Amino acid sequence: MAKKNAFYAQSGGVTSVINASACGVIETARQHKTQIGKLYAGHNGIIGALREELIDTGKESAKTIAALRHTPAGAFGSCRYKLKSLEENQAEYARLLEVFKAHNIGYFFYNGGGDSADTCLKISQLSSKMGYPIQAIHVPKTVDNDLPLTDCCPGFGSVAKYVAVSTREAGLDVASMCNTSTKVFILEVMGRHAGWIAGAAGLAKEAETDPPHIILFPEIAFDRKKFVKKVQQTVKKCGYCVVVASEGAQTKDGRFLADAGTTDAFGHKQLGGVAPTLATIIKEDLGYKYHWALADYLQRAARHIASATDVEQAYAVGKAAVEYAMAGKNAVMPAIIRGKGKKYSWTIQEAPLEKVANVEKMMPRNYISRDGFGITEEGFRYFAPLIAGEDHPPYKNGLPQYAKLKKVFAAKKLKKGFKV
Amino acid sequence: MAKKNAFYAQSGGVTSVINASACGVIETARQHKTQIGKLYAGHNGIIGALREELIDTGKESAKTIAALRHTPAGAFGSCRYKLKSLEENQAEYARLLEVFKAHNIGYFFYNGGGDSADTCLKISQLSSKMGYPIQAIHVPKTVDNDLPLTDCCPGFGSVAKYVAVSTREAGLDVASMCNTSTKVFILEVMGRHAGWIAGAAGLAKEAETDPPHIILFPEIAFDRKKFVKKVQQTVKKCGYCVVVASEGAQTKDGRFLADAGTTDAFGHKQLGGVAPTLATIIKEDLGYKYHWALADYLQRAARHIASATDVEQAYAVGKAAVEYAMAGKNAVMPAIIRGKGKKYSWTIQEAPLEKVANVEKMMPRNYISRDGFGITEEGFRYFAPLIAGEDHPPYKNGLPQYAKLKKVFAAKKLKKGFKV
Repeated sequence: MAKKNAFYAQSGGVTSVINASACGVIETARQHKTQIGKLYAGHNGIIGALREELIDTGKESAKTIAALRHTPAGAFGSCRYKLKSLEENQAEYARLLEVFKAHNIGYFFYNGGGDSADTCLKISQLSSKMGYPIQAIHVPKTVDNDLPLTDCCPGFGSVAKYVAVSTREAGLDVASMCNTSTKVFILEVMGRHAGWIAGAAGLAKEAETDPPHIILFPEIAFDRKKFVKKVQQTVKKCGYCVVVASEGAQTKDGRFLADAGTTDAFGHKQLGGVAPTLATIIKEDLGYKYHWALADYLQRAARHIASATDVEQAYAVGKAAVEYAMAGKNAVMPAIIRGKGKKYSWTIQEAPLEKVANVEKMMPRNYISRDGFGITEEGFRYFAPLIAGEDHPPYKNGLPQYAKLKKVFAAKKLKKGFKV
Repeated sequence: MAKKNAFYAQSGGVTSVINASACGVIETARQHKTQIGKLYAGHNGIIGALREELIDTGKESAKTIAALRHTPAGAFGSCRYKLKSLEENQAEYARLLEVFKAHNIGYFFYNGGGDSADTCLKISQLSSKMGYPIQAIHVPKTVDNDLPLTDCCPGFGSVAKYVAVSTREAGLDVASMCNTSTKVFILEVMGRHAGWIAGAAGLAKEAETDPPHIILFPEIAFDRKKFVKKVQQTVKKCGYCVVVASEGAQTKDGRFLADAGTTDAFGHKQLGGVAPTLATIIKEDLGYKYHWALADYLQRAARHIASATDVEQAYAVGKAAVEYAMAGKNAVMPAIIRGKGKKYSWTIQEAPLEKVANVEKMMPRNYISRDGFGITEEGFRYFAPLIAGEDHPPYKNGLPQYAKLKKVFAAKKLKKGFKV
């Protein structure tokens, strides 16, 4: 097999472990120097390929690459940039192949969610059609946990751990003050379409009266009356109530709670949020003192509280992607398959990209309790192993030490630029 | 010295290390069994004394008490309840002394901030006046870091670490996506009157272009034009801008930014927040894509990322309080004194409560940079050692394991209740 170079890119919203996948790809590629020449990383994801901004990962020391394993966010830069369909913008695909050809790239590793799985598949199809063979392997990543064929998605377990730990800690805070202070605490978490992240908060609950007392899922239509009643009952029973709400929580008619139709002093549409909307409801209908938090990026960047299981899986899919490429595979994704035994175990198996692209995995209804406000035993069993284990990053002067890359760019070979 | 019982109570907003102080008090009291009989903890703080709801800490195992050291929030319950002045409500003080007398309490340990230092002092003064001697020792605690005579306040170092770590992590997230996505990220943190907590975010900055790029302090009048200009300059220079804002950020005329005068769809005053207000400003004046987070209780409950220095100091002040009582002291507070050497060191020394009560320590102006948007070298040197060291709690099934108390109440001795 002729020696080819490789290209790796990070795509979409970053996670606290996507760099662990990068670490898996790069370290494994370095073990196959007879087959893989240079490994380039796209500066800001696929845009780096279009602009011919290729970071030469070979210029980074083994120590720096190893440190990627414990570094959050996208070390090479990621992007929100979905390639259009082949019909709509053939020039983009042509440019990609032109750049790949110019840099003798024969392996394409794309680290992202559903959209990038689709792009990865298209590149594979197109390359064979255009007579320039590229093996395209998708490396799964998304905090949304919505990729099919894989039991879970790297990135999700760590967000799940962050949310469960934060719920437990803030719950203790509220419990200890509720006699004279805050009665209702609301934590808003990510999840526009599915309640995977909110559901994981349920792991914080050990006893019946433990928080979270209410979880709001996008899958369950929000009913103000039912919600208010549940809050009131909980405060009466426990003295306080902790609510974990998906940003995607919505009413029966599909209206997001975050779009509360509020306006600011200038009459502009108010920057919403599910948490403040729920707080307003609680204030109006019950008059309880409340507090709310919006974790936003903190939750998906929190490498300091990453799940060791998640880190291992993120690394493993990166490693497997390179091994698949070395085995001549194309248009596949390493998927995480859960063992059948009672004790949690997992293996990596290949999944065809045709079956991954454009398919969104929703949370099964039987993970959500009958009243729609919590998770079931089945849900608990699904979530629990994904947050298992700690993988503390190294600290210096009280702060986690994260990798700093040199980011040396490969010399451009094409005369023409490309506008992105 | 006749054997007396002791009373301990937690007061005001809880922290991630106030239970470490409780642990210091209880473990040390257990070493002085010849002088201290039972150690009662107030259920929900001082209210527990007024209601004669006394938790017998002697019923908790040594293992449970040791676990308090790594348990956030107020394990015995805290309260927001300020005793009125002696003139206004003598009945309250009389009731306290009645309860203390009935339970043979001769030692009063009060774990709180400025208000509780004042209460502690009053109880000491009153007890000698009423001929029932009680040694009242204040145990310092507050995330606000605003107590005088002590170099720092237990609880602050851990919030500072949480904020610095979160700023660094979210900063990496934004940096990796800014080319095509969010340009400005705002983290709102606690600090109604002083910018101590926001200032600590400055520890995340190593290089000139590192986040946080802008810190907003209550001490520096907010100037929209200047702020917008700084955001724009930062985005141009770094590609993105991370803002850490005190909840107490205010304009020159003393109006809180959080009180933005916004109304919801029903015309009600909108639940504010500095972060969404700043986001609106950025949207209107610059049009950048933004995201914002509001850490709220997560920051002060985050025992999982506590500062080891803070935990040690919290324990040490609890321990010293009991030792002071054993040495016959009264109306004092163990203060943390910073050593003069270049290497950080600290000792515990006694401070008279007269000089602690009703004095608020503001952040020195020379800790804030000239332009008002960052911290100086002096500020950095002050903050840095306070977040040093990690003190990871034990984990089980991926979650921190926090102490669970039995909370056995002492039998009531008074016939009459007391309405609080």
